[in-house]
Amino acid sequence: MTFMAAALAVGLGALGAAIGNGMIVKSTVESIARQPEAASKLQTTMFVGVGIVEVVPLAATVIAFLIMFS
Amino acid sequence: MTFMAAALAVGLGALGAAIGNGMIVKSTVESIARQPEAASKLQTTMFVGVGIVEVVPLAATVIAFLIMFS
Amino acid sequence: MTFMAAALAVGLGALGAAIGNGMIVKSTVESIARQPEAASKLQTTMFVGVGIVEVVPLAATVIAFLIMFS
Amino acid sequence: MTFMAAALAVGLGALGAAIGNGMIVKSTVESIARQPEAASKLQTTMFVGVGIVEVVPLAATVIAFLIMFS
Amino acid sequence: MTFMAAALAVGLGALGAAIGNGMIVKSTVESIARQPEAASKLQTTMFVGVGIVEVVPLAATVIAFLIMFS
Amino acid sequence: MTFMAAALAVGLGALGAAIGNGMIVKSTVESIARQPEAASKLQTTMFVGVGIVEVVPLAATVIAFLIMFS
Amino acid sequence: MTFMAAALAVGLGALGAAIGNGMIVKSTVESIARQPEAASKLQTTMFVGVGIVEVVPLAATVIAFLIMFS
Amino acid sequence: MTFMAAALAVGLGALGAAIGNGMIVKSTVESIARQPEAASKLQTTMFVGVGIVEVVPLAATVIAFLIMFS
Amino acid sequence: MTFMAAALAVGLGALGAAIGNGMIVKSTVESIARQPEAASKLQTTMFVGVGIVEVVPLAATVIAFLIMFS
Amino acid sequence: MTFMAAALAVGLGALGAAIGNGMIVKSTVESIARQPEAASKLQTTMFVGVGIVEVVPLAATVIAFLIMFS
Amino acid sequence: MTFMAAALAVGLGALGAAIGNGMIVKSTVESIARQPEAASKLQTTMFVGVGIVEVVPLAATVIAFLIMFS
Amino acid sequence: MTFMAAALAVGLGALGAAIGNGMIVKSTVESIARQPEAASKLQTTMFVGVGIVEVVPLAATVIAFLIMFS
Amino acid sequence: MTFMAAALAVGLGALGAAIGNGMIVKSTVESIARQPEAASKLQTTMFVGVGIVEVVPLAATVIAFLIMFS
Amino acid sequence: MTFMAAALAVGLGALGAAIGNGMIVKSTVESIARQPEAASKLQTTMFVGVGIVEVVPLAATVIAFLIMFS
Repeated sequence: MTFMAAALAVGLGALGAAIGNGMIVKSTVESIARQPEAASKLQTTMFVGVGIVEVVPLAATVIAFLIMFS
Repeated sequence: MTFMAAALAVGLGALGAAIGNGMIVKSTVESIARQPEAASKLQTTMFVGVGIVEVVPLAATVIAFLIMFS
Repeated sequence: MTFMAAALAVGLGALGAAIGNGMIVKSTVESIARQPEAASKLQTTMFVGVGIVEVVPLAATVIAFLIMFS
Repeated sequence: MTFMAAALAVGLGALGAAIGNGMIVKSTVESIARQPEAASKLQTTMFVGVGIVEVVPLAATVIAFLIMFS
Repeated sequence: MTFMAAALAVGLGALGAAIGNGMIVKSTVESIARQPEAASKLQTTMFVGVGIVEVVPLAATVIAFLIMFS
Repeated sequence: MTFMAAALAVGLGALGAAIGNGMIVKSTVESIARQPEAASKLQTTMFVGVGIVEVVPLAATVIAFLIMFS
Repeated sequence: MTFMAAALAVGLGALGAAIGNGMIVKSTVESIARQPEAASKLQTTMFVGVGIVEVVPLAATVIAFLIMFS
Repeated sequence: MTFMAAALAVGLGALGAAIGNGMIVKSTVESIARQPEAASKLQTTMFVGVGIVEVVPLAATVIAFLIMFS
Repeated sequence: MTFMAAALAVGLGALGAAIGNGMIVKSTVESIARQPEAASKLQTTMFVGVGIVEVVPLAATVIAFLIMFS
Repeated sequence: MTFMAAALAVGLGALGAAIGNGMIVKSTVESIARQPEAASKLQTTMFVGVGIVEVVPLAATVIAFLIMFS
Repeated sequence: MTFMAAALAVGLGALGAAIGNGMIVKSTVESIARQPEAASKLQTTMFVGVGIVEVVPLAATVIAFLIMFS
Repeated sequence: MTFMAAALAVGLGALGAAIGNGMIVKSTVESIARQPEAASKLQTTMFVGVGIVEVVPLAATVIAFLIMFS
Repeated sequence: MTFMAAALAVGLGALGAAIGNGMIVKSTVESIARQPEAASKLQTTMFVGVGIVEVVPLAATVIAFLIMFS
Repeated sequence: MTFMAAALAVGLGALGAAIGNGMIVKSTVESIARQPEAASKLQTTMFVGVGIVEVVPLAATVIAFLIMFS
């Protein structure tokens, strides 16, 4: 049951991070293609966004490792 | 069962935070690409929005850590 | 079972708050990008909206903490 | 099982309130951005709407607290 | 099991009321924004509609309270 | 198990009534906004429609009360 | 288990009747708004349609009552 | 378990009949509104269609009654 | 368990037949409304189509009756 | 458990055949309505397509009968 | 459990083959209707495509028969 | 349980291969219909694509056969 | 349970690889059809993309084989 | 149960990585086809994006291997 909990935590975190970051990077790529001159401003917003999105999935990964080695 | 609860809490929180923040940052990036001169006003709204969205997922993360070390 | 209930309460609350607030902030950002001169009026409506949406998820968080320390 | 019932009640209520209010506030924000001069009339309709939507989720929250302290 | 039944009844009722009323109020807000001069006629239809939609969820809430105090 | 059955009956009925009536009233509101002069004819059709939709959910409510007091 | 079966039968029937009738009445209302002069012909088709759709949900309701009193 | 089987059979049948007939009658109503002069030809096709769709749900209803009285 | 199997077979068959035939008849009705002069050719294709779709659901119905009387 | 397996096999097969054939016949009907002069070529492709789609569902039906009489 | 496994294998295979082939044949029919002169080239691609799609579902059918007679 | 595992492996593989290949071949057919002169280049890309997609489902099929004969 | 785990690992991996690669190859085919002169640049991006997508599903396949022979 | 946890971890990770990377590479390919001169800038953003998306699925893969050899 311990291993199953670690798998569930990191699995749901991976699913969440993929959906959130996928949406952000996808719209960034499409926006750069539409306005190449605003690329730097868009990438800055993208980095802030993926940083915020990754907070909870990384906490999930940390918890999964904690569960593994406890 | 304890570890499973921590995994579920942080996993659902990660899923929620990813969906909510993903939608917000995505629309911000697309809006900046459409109106680059309104970038600062849009980013301010974005930061307020992701701050509000993160409240409950962070509480979920806190509860997960509480469950881990109790 | 106690921890599982706390995880479920705060997890469903996080999912709900993320969906609701995500929709509201997303449309606010897109509307400001379309009409920058109405930004203050839109942000006021947004704050009222996220305040109303957060009521029940925050109650869910409170209940989760109550379950944790009971 | 008692705590699980409270968690389920407040969790489903939070999900419902978030979906319902999210749809209402979202369309209000977009409508104000399209017709800023009708803002007060739209906000009145919005307040009535979220008031009606919140009735059953608040009852769910009350029932959850009743379950907690019984 | 008793509390779980009350939670399920009021939770499903909250979900149903939120979806139904959300759709109705949303379209009312958008319709008022498109035709502000028909606001009173639209609001009358809205009140009738949410009244009809709330019948069964309120019965669900009543049944939930009956289950709680029986 | 008895209370659970009542909760399920009234809960599914509330969900059904909300979806059906929500769709009907929503389209009525939008149609009145598009053709205000046909409002009375549309409302008549709406009342007939919600009357037909409510038949089975009301039967579900009746059955739920029957289960409660049997 | 008996009550649960009755609840399931009438609940699924209510869900089915709501979805089917909701779609029919919704399209009728929108069609009358688009062509008010064809209202009587459309309403005739609507009544035939909801009559056909209601056959099996009503049988489900009958079976639910049969289960209740057997 | 016997009653549950009858409920499941008639419930799934009601869901199927509602989805199938709902789609058919909905498109018939919209088509009559677009071409009122082809109403009789469309209604004939509709009756054939709902007759074919109802075959298996009616068999499901018959089986449910057979289960009830066996 | 025997009755449950019959219910599942005929229920899934009814769902399948309804979805398949609903899509076919719906598109036939809409196509006749768009091109009334091709009605006979379209109806022929429709009859062939619903005949093919009904093969497996009817086999499911036959199997359900076989299960009932075995 | 034997009957349940037969029901599951034929039920999933019916669902699959209905979805696949429904999509094919639907697009054939709409294509004939758009280009009546290509009807024979389209019907040939349709017959080949439904023949290919039916292979595995018919195998599922055969397996269901094999399970029934073994 | 043996029969159930065969039913699951052939049922999932039928579902998969129907979805995959349905999409391919559907787009082929629509493409022929749009460009009748490219029919032979499109049918060749279609046959290659359905041949590739059928590989794994046919393996599933073979495995189901192997399970039946082992 | 052994047979069930083989059925699950090949069934999920068939579902995956059908969805992936269906999307690829579908878009290839539509693209050839739009640009018949680029048919050979498109078919080359298609063959590479379906080859890559089939890797893991074929491994699933191999594992299913390994489970069958072990 | 061992075989079931291998089936689950390779099955989920096949589903994931099919969805990811299907989306990539599909958009590559459509993009080549729209701009045949950029085919080589698009295919390079496609190969990089499917290489990245295949990493985790291949790890899943490896783990499935490890489970099989352990 | 140990193997099942490893399978779940790597399976959910593969699903997440496929969805996230699939969306990113898909939009990159379509954007390059629309603006071939911005290809290098788009590919840079793509590599950053897939790098960020892969973090948590790779952690899931690592955890799966840890579970396998512990």
